[in-house]
Amino acid sequence: MHFIDLLNKKKRGLALSTEEINCFVEGYCQGHIPDYQVSAFLMAIYFQGMTVQETADLTLAMANSGDRVDLSSIPGVKVDKHSTGGVGDKTSLIISPILAALGIKLAKMSGRGLGHTGGTVDKLESIPGLKTDLSLEEFFGQVKDIGLAIAGQTANLAPADKKLYALRDVTATVDNMSLIAASILSKKIAAGSDRVVFDVKCGSGAFMKTEEEAKELAILMRDIGAKSGLAVHSIVSDMNQPLGRMVGNRLEVYESIETLKGRGPEDLKELCFALAGEMLVLSGMYTEVQAEEKISEVIVNGAALEKFRDMVAAQGGDVAYIDEPERLLQAGEKYEFLAEKAGYVTKMDSEAIGTASLLLGAGRRTLDDVIDFDAGLIFEKKLGDQVEKGDLICTLYSNDRALFSEAIERLKGAIELGELAYRKKNIVLARIC
Amino acid sequence: MHFIDLLNKKKRGLALSTEEINCFVEGYCQGHIPDYQVSAFLMAIYFQGMTVQETADLTLAMANSGDRVDLSSIPGVKVDKHSTGGVGDKTSLIISPILAALGIKLAKMSGRGLGHTGGTVDKLESIPGLKTDLSLEEFFGQVKDIGLAIAGQTANLAPADKKLYALRDVTATVDNMSLIAASILSKKIAAGSDRVVFDVKCGSGAFMKTEEEAKELAILMRDIGAKSGLAVHSIVSDMNQPLGRMVGNRLEVYESIETLKGRGPEDLKELCFALAGEMLVLSGMYTEVQAEEKISEVIVNGAALEKFRDMVAAQGGDVAYIDEPERLLQAGEKYEFLAEKAGYVTKMDSEAIGTASLLLGAGRRTLDDVIDFDAGLIFEKKLGDQVEKGDLICTLYSNDRALFSEAIERLKGAIELGELAYRKKNIVLARIC
Repeated sequence: MHFIDLLNKKKRGLALSTEEINCFVEGYCQGHIPDYQVSAFLMAIYFQGMTVQETADLTLAMANSGDRVDLSSIPGVKVDKHSTGGVGDKTSLIISPILAALGIKLAKMSGRGLGHTGGTVDKLESIPGLKTDLSLEEFFGQVKDIGLAIAGQTANLAPADKKLYALRDVTATVDNMSLIAASILSKKIAAGSDRVVFDVKCGSGAFMKTEEEAKELAILMRDIGAKSGLAVHSIVSDMNQPLGRMVGNRLEVYESIETLKGRGPEDLKELCFALAGEMLVLSGMYTEVQAEEKISEVIVNGAALEKFRDMVAAQGGDVAYIDEPERLLQAGEKYEFLAEKAGYVTKMDSEAIGTASLLLGAGRRTLDDVIDFDAGLIFEKKLGDQVEKGDLICTLYSNDRALFSEAIERLKGAIELGELAYRKKNIVLARIC
Repeated sequence: MHFIDLLNKKKRGLALSTEEINCFVEGYCQGHIPDYQVSAFLMAIYFQGMTVQETADLTLAMANSGDRVDLSSIPGVKVDKHSTGGVGDKTSLIISPILAALGIKLAKMSGRGLGHTGGTVDKLESIPGLKTDLSLEEFFGQVKDIGLAIAGQTANLAPADKKLYALRDVTATVDNMSLIAASILSKKIAAGSDRVVFDVKCGSGAFMKTEEEAKELAILMRDIGAKSGLAVHSIVSDMNQPLGRMVGNRLEVYESIETLKGRGPEDLKELCFALAGEMLVLSGMYTEVQAEEKISEVIVNGAALEKFRDMVAAQGGDVAYIDEPERLLQAGEKYEFLAEKAGYVTKMDSEAIGTASLLLGAGRRTLDDVIDFDAGLIFEKKLGDQVEKGDLICTLYSNDRALFSEAIERLKGAIELGELAYRKKNIVLARIC
């Protein structure tokens, strides 16, 4: 089989067979097919698309290109959750202990943050002492013991996806639904998941800019999942502003603890309930109505927070920071960002806010950057809120005063005040299953 | 300027500016833009197309990427002719002396043959002693002296086109009209032409498979020419069978001499008259009606043949082969290909016949192959001719008997005999100017 023939076939809009897709993925990983042919192929896919079957074949071929984690030795029902990436998204820290408290097993491998979105692993590591580089044995043991572990991705999961993604990034071929879906699902399948709830975000800080695109991706992932042995449900959620009030690593752990105590901001709580509820439904253990009751129960009786504390303890973290969460608020410098005029908050560009947080030291530009865990932002106002001139919109935190000016500049472009009242949107836009 | 931005622009179907196209061509030639980005860009061009202005910009940028021959020191009217490539195409050998005999200056740089099509330079070099590797000084001097020189391409003409073509060849991005037109025209402009008549061939042995595609290319080249200072006329001609009766280097020189004596086969004569006539019209020296008369005149009075002999002599060739052309027919081995049944010749696939000729030793598979100048085929029957079982369809010639069997196999698939009479087509299908 010559790759040029597959390239010609896709260029003419024909579907490739399972064998052909496998040949492509294997040949590319082994270095037999050069980048310049693959980039032309990716561009042909951009214009001609892929069928659901082709996309499922690509997903499995990429999932099989490296290690595959086998979770079958963990007894009980396992459900995974994955977000397509947002700003201020700490839902994993909240949902995982809620579900563990309800008897679901959560063996979660998470990534680090890069660019304007933060990573769950970084947020956890901001708790002094906590380690996420667990061996597979430690990881499995912890899930068996307390029902819950969140580890950094150590296994060589879907290397084909990694190689392809790097090429897509420099050849303007990232924005194709099939390639996006296959990339996400291949990593989940390689990580051993068989039931996943996706949080497909849309808006200014998300990869999908519109609700329609987000729904399209959710439907495609459900259909590919059905062909790949992966049960997929999705919640489509709004990312036209940061999720919750806090952005930054320790700040987000703080807000997660607040939410586990039932005191979190409304949008964050609503989304966490929707995602956790969907995971319970997908587990087959509860109906939708039962799920909501059960979630409230473990919040009110403290069982969810207790699970979070158990996990922090099991992974070596200092639980004093959980018991006295104000210890998480320790940045040396702060700056108050005030409204320059009266009006309504009409724009709160999450991508730009994510970048402002990065500029304060809370994120990484490159994988080698060192994070300032105390850096970030706390918002007092959100989309639709009315403000007077001089009102506090948000406070910036960092341990390096020199970093404020650039972050403030970025914030000025991110936040707009208008004269007309702005109608608040729901955070949960749709449910696809 | 980042190339990824140009790539995105083209992907979205927007036109690039002259400056952007120049940046692309320069950046690629200098190695600043990697192959994998350019191949994705070429695939985007395949799907989104290029405007005439973009194509003209690409043409000039490629023409300017290497040497540019300056023919201005040669006094008189210069007209060039270029064929998009066919099988048995010896028109340059016939037309050039006809025009030189009529006072046009022909400073022609030609290529070598590769694959199933032969090259004018190889055909000329099949005349013992003749050399085509002229210095620019020899080349210019000869054109001034006798009005005519055909040299191999020694200058570094349009290296950007060479680099891009090699990439297109391996990334399924050859078949785009704009890229084809820019590739052809950039080389002509770099070679110093300002008036060119194109022989745009269509059919089984040509790059353009249909008459419509050939016309589209001719119109595009005319329009790009108008924006690039190149006056372009085209003759669209049929290539559903080899041109003339002979295929192979010395055989084609023989047939050219016959045609210059007024004894050539009808299709070859008709096409040569059309192309030479168009060149005379484009020169501004004659009207269409005058041109036809003048061409007949230099055939009948022997002036055209005399010019051919002058050129051979000037380039060191042994004119005994021109004076006694039967000396050109000296292959050691031959094989008579007979009709296996009675009928009409309904197919004569020129690409397969070109390949059969290559297999007999008349062509090159790679640039290092050595050519057997005596090898080739002489056809006794052409499309539409009626044959009886056992009639001679063609004779194969080679100096290596071992090469016959594979060539015969190829011919069997190339030539079909049907029961229904086949209507002969005109060789000249259209004139675009």
